[in-house]
Amino acid sequence: MTLPERPAVVGLSGERFRAVYHLTGDKAEARAKAEDITIEQTIEFPADLAPEGDIRDHIIGRIERLRRLKSGRWEAVISYAVETAGPDLAQFLNVIFGNISIKPGIRLMRLDLPPALLARFKGPRFGRAGVRQLVKVHNRPLMCSALKPMGLSSADLADMAYRFALGGLDLIKDDHGLANQPFSPFQTRVEQCAAAVARANRETGLNCLYLPNITAPADKIAAYARFARDAGAGGLLICPGIVGFDTMRALADDDGVNLPIMSHPSFYGSMVTSPRSGISHYALYGQLQRLAGADMSIYPNFGGRFSFSVDECRSIVAGTQDAMGHLKPCFPAPGGGMTMEKVPLMNAVYGTEVVYLIGGGLHRHSRDLTANVRYFMRLIQPERLEAEE
Amino acid sequence: MTLPERPAVVGLSGERFRAVYHLTGDKAEARAKAEDITIEQTIEFPADLAPEGDIRDHIIGRIERLRRLKSGRWEAVISYAVETAGPDLAQFLNVIFGNISIKPGIRLMRLDLPPALLARFKGPRFGRAGVRQLVKVHNRPLMCSALKPMGLSSADLADMAYRFALGGLDLIKDDHGLANQPFSPFQTRVEQCAAAVARANRETGLNCLYLPNITAPADKIAAYARFARDAGAGGLLICPGIVGFDTMRALADDDGVNLPIMSHPSFYGSMVTSPRSGISHYALYGQLQRLAGADMSIYPNFGGRFSFSVDECRSIVAGTQDAMGHLKPCFPAPGGGMTMEKVPLMNAVYGTEVVYLIGGGLHRHSRDLTANVRYFMRLIQPERLEAEE
Repeated sequence: MTLPERPAVVGLSGERFRAVYHLTGDKAEARAKAEDITIEQTIEFPADLAPEGDIRDHIIGRIERLRRLKSGRWEAVISYAVETAGPDLAQFLNVIFGNISIKPGIRLMRLDLPPALLARFKGPRFGRAGVRQLVKVHNRPLMCSALKPMGLSSADLADMAYRFALGGLDLIKDDHGLANQPFSPFQTRVEQCAAAVARANRETGLNCLYLPNITAPADKIAAYARFARDAGAGGLLICPGIVGFDTMRALADDDGVNLPIMSHPSFYGSMVTSPRSGISHYALYGQLQRLAGADMSIYPNFGGRFSFSVDECRSIVAGTQDAMGHLKPCFPAPGGGMTMEKVPLMNAVYGTEVVYLIGGGLHRHSRDLTANVRYFMRLIQPERLEAEE
Repeated sequence: MTLPERPAVVGLSGERFRAVYHLTGDKAEARAKAEDITIEQTIEFPADLAPEGDIRDHIIGRIERLRRLKSGRWEAVISYAVETAGPDLAQFLNVIFGNISIKPGIRLMRLDLPPALLARFKGPRFGRAGVRQLVKVHNRPLMCSALKPMGLSSADLADMAYRFALGGLDLIKDDHGLANQPFSPFQTRVEQCAAAVARANRETGLNCLYLPNITAPADKIAAYARFARDAGAGGLLICPGIVGFDTMRALADDDGVNLPIMSHPSFYGSMVTSPRSGISHYALYGQLQRLAGADMSIYPNFGGRFSFSVDECRSIVAGTQDAMGHLKPCFPAPGGGMTMEKVPLMNAVYGTEVVYLIGGGLHRHSRDLTANVRYFMRLIQPERLEAEE
């Protein structure tokens, strides 16, 4: 014999979750792609040889809907038994976009997850409300900048952090390229920058958080996070494209760390840049970040040096806040391209529920960093935002 | 003041490594993209504001060559100070393809790494020769299949493993979709399948290895690997696209595990599918796998149900074996599409230094799994390969 006849599959609850894909091609091609997804993402086995019974009826994905969109693409809604995704995020990612990631013309658009699946995930520990409580700012966008350029000593970076915090920034993060280089080793940098921000907070009475980058060797990330916490860091920056989404999830779930997580989009940009393949902005920078515990999701803002459109940025905002059971909304954190002229449009797209990242512009405005921060902070004050509306 | 004047950068050795990118656009656009890469991947700071001295002279990437290719694309060779990449793989990935992954029209093609950088990486623990020693097969391709479909019980999967091993397969892996599902929990499956393969080995006198999938929660992978080793697993299967390259590296470097690693291409396929963006087949499935310690690199074979060309597969072979200092070559492990008719072409592309993955075809040939394995094993015997040459 080759395979058992009609094997009973143990542990099936009948609960299913849905993933929405966009497919290219004509009707027959779209149907073939949808059917292929149901197999490739589950049994990965010739359909005609798949055993009858539970495997065919429940384990193989199911096409719930296939319809043509105005754009000419096809929307396939495919459901999977929650048990296929195992109990963990790693296998969940494998089911929603594993092997089919290698097939052009399939784009994962959106996830629709029932409580039975969401119950496995804690999501953002702080979320928008929790981060606001930490910085004690409730009625305006939050403002963040990065310590850079790479090459500066820890003392110089700490001095910059102090000047930033004195100006009133809410969040100061390491540039994602600051790691454990000889010119600014991780531990020294974290100690000095955290101390500098604490000193500024004492002077201002504000509650600026410092978020060091802990995109580090896999076997050291948890220890780095604890070191950062003990040194006074107020949050953590990590790149899930490099360390894996579940590493970020483990960090968010770690009660011994208990810090808000800012997610950086380095390395996996190829997942969004081809409009017909990969993962949508909505799912990648919104839904997946929340499943993996990010409290703030960085991505390139429209009008900056990357190519994201206003609509793509709006979809990210939706992904960070659309209902996902008990999972808290996280902050969209658009980076780059902030100028005084753009504040009205940014306000229209983001409102107040946003973390703005401002980088080079903060250094360009004048030679006084603290004065520059104050200038940009004025741009996002409630009275200005109301006046612009 | 904003930034220190001419800050000295501590710890620079003068050693640089090179990354080769292909760029789209006309000459001016290509030049602008190349210059952008030098900044975006290092200081990520307005070039005109970057401090004079070491940062400008050494930290910013350097365009070593920019030339037009016959294809109309541009080849940019960019060098980086080895110190920018810190001491670890995570930050190395960040430098070679971090933020620019989000910019269309830039494709990372190849890495050229000096001993000063390669010294940080152990690479594959076993490599081709080490895997051959474990299975005691030296003069033909190795043959591997996967336990599936998802939904079978551990007992059924173990029975399949036994029949596979009895037929003479060299390697048997979990399907990458087998995780820790209720129908086949990780620990039970590993124990039963490892025992089944050991029993077959006692009967055949052969040395088949069983490789369970340990793509698991980030905080459990190391423990899973030890459990697998203690249960008699002969290697490990892992998806670096899901868990992160450095998690695979940590596993390969772990003396307490000491098992060969097979890398599976799930989830990050979007990195290769757009020919103008992302990462080349050569770098993604070849060079990066070796930096991250994979002994065998799975990818979709030409002529199967994916879209890789013969040339792309040839480039992967090159990436698994081209000189990289002390890093051992790893096995290319093409999956799918194996039929008797294709053996001559597969032999021409791969020769004997390959691990063939055979999946559905093994179940289709007849209803006797062991006989089917023997049939396919005969296809790759040395005398047949010689006859076909």
